[in-house]
Amino acid sequence: MATPKEPAHYIFEMPMRVRDYEVDAQGIVNNANYLHYLEHTRHEFCRMAGMTFAEMHRQGIDPVLRRVEIIYLHSLGLGEEMVSKLNIRRDGARFIFQQDIFKHPGGEPVVRAEVTIVCIENGRLGRGDVLADVFDRFLH
Amino acid sequence: MATPKEPAHYIFEMPMRVRDYEVDAQGIVNNANYLHYLEHTRHEFCRMAGMTFAEMHRQGIDPVLRRVEIIYLHSLGLGEEMVSKLNIRRDGARFIFQQDIFKHPGGEPVVRAEVTIVCIENGRLGRGDVLADVFDRFLH
Amino acid sequence: MATPKEPAHYIFEMPMRVRDYEVDAQGIVNNANYLHYLEHTRHEFCRMAGMTFAEMHRQGIDPVLRRVEIIYLHSLGLGEEMVSKLNIRRDGARFIFQQDIFKHPGGEPVVRAEVTIVCIENGRLGRGDVLADVFDRFLH
Amino acid sequence: MATPKEPAHYIFEMPMRVRDYEVDAQGIVNNANYLHYLEHTRHEFCRMAGMTFAEMHRQGIDPVLRRVEIIYLHSLGLGEEMVSKLNIRRDGARFIFQQDIFKHPGGEPVVRAEVTIVCIENGRLGRGDVLADVFDRFLH
Repeated sequence: MATPKEPAHYIFEMPMRVRDYEVDAQGIVNNANYLHYLEHTRHEFCRMAGMTFAEMHRQGIDPVLRRVEIIYLHSLGLGEEMVSKLNIRRDGARFIFQQDIFKHPGGEPVVRAEVTIVCIENGRLGRGDVLADVFDRFLH
Repeated sequence: MATPKEPAHYIFEMPMRVRDYEVDAQGIVNNANYLHYLEHTRHEFCRMAGMTFAEMHRQGIDPVLRRVEIIYLHSLGLGEEMVSKLNIRRDGARFIFQQDIFKHPGGEPVVRAEVTIVCIENGRLGRGDVLADVFDRFLH
Repeated sequence: MATPKEPAHYIFEMPMRVRDYEVDAQGIVNNANYLHYLEHTRHEFCRMAGMTFAEMHRQGIDPVLRRVEIIYLHSLGLGEEMVSKLNIRRDGARFIFQQDIFKHPGGEPVVRAEVTIVCIENGRLGRGDVLADVFDRFLH
Repeated sequence: MATPKEPAHYIFEMPMRVRDYEVDAQGIVNNANYLHYLEHTRHEFCRMAGMTFAEMHRQGIDPVLRRVEIIYLHSLGLGEEMVSKLNIRRDGARFIFQQDIFKHPGGEPVVRAEVTIVCIENGRLGRGDVLADVFDRFLH
């Protein structure tokens, strides 16, 4: 991610607003909360794609994080709004989400992240084929 | 709150959905997160009433909690939706929020809470007159 | 809890220090985090008493909150230390924790809370007899 | 961080135990909480080095994250213990923390992270010289 380029297109995006308890003593959203925003965006994407996180869990599939790289570009403060955007690609057993958050309005980039997921299927590392089916029309 | 009666009417309500990271190892929303839901609802109410939490802070007014009583009635799980509802009354320097959360759809009561707020104004306990003005048309 | 009196004696206490991310934009520990402190104290108490929360879960016993009343007396800020103290009594199927947090050093009361727990045993409300055995020497 | 090698030596380490509310519906510590663990470790390191985060803030210095890369290797569950370890180096205006967390006992690596911090001094990006003085004996 040495020269992160913003893609021209995202397959999913959702608006969110900072909840004031997410802001820390520095007056900005605490760094860890962006991982919450990113996770929530992925889960809403899964819901839209046709399989909720709860449904995966019932089928014995647990997506788990393998790696996150996140670059903090502009901070968010009390009451601010954002748009959280996402692309996904598959690399063998790994699903790689490109996730970017922008201020709204204004559009300044807030964070840029690459999130790598693998699937634990019935307790062991799986090939992720069920997820690949769910994500089929979005993978590229 | 010995015999909590549900009011016939609320002055503010907003929909929310459980974010999956708010669910703990028991498979239900962790008890502390309801205080987050309640706080976020109060702040959105303030925004609707005309003064955001950030704006209060800039004016030297910091509402702080004095007391919370919360009764847990039904639990929420992964991906579930709720409606968070609120009434407010003033009692001297204290503002008392009656806050109830219901499942959606279904309507089962999730939590019932009474939240008492006082205002710290420029570092000391204030009378809350500025807030009372903001809330004027909602107080009863 | 109209006239909360501090007991002369607690059956369990533990030191904690504020983690800076728990402090919000007001410069004080966010109200919901006290429910985290209280929960963590109860779980450490259970561990000391001889049964961890994880072990309960494996035995099909899930303690869940029924009610919390918490009074906020003094706030904690960045880096401050506290002592979290606890007593417990049984009332039928309910376990009632009296939980108080004090600044350290100094001893000012931070929060005073009464937390009511019931036991879900294999999916339904239980009598709590297993927990009562665990807590036997502490109940009064 | 293509071939992360574990250093032979760390300048700071501290034990921590999972707080059960940090565990999510998958039964493992939620990914975002590791950023909390890492932040708390850095702040405790600063305290040990002689300047707390609160003191920095009072001097108009606010360290903010610029980048985090975190690799998740083994998960932590209810009640588990860890040791959080840290090294630091300076690269111009940036401070780069190498932070690793290991299970305790056992020693399996839990996460491996590289965290880049810059200093906002009185509202603008600073050179970080005050922090460099504080960290002087630890930088290499």
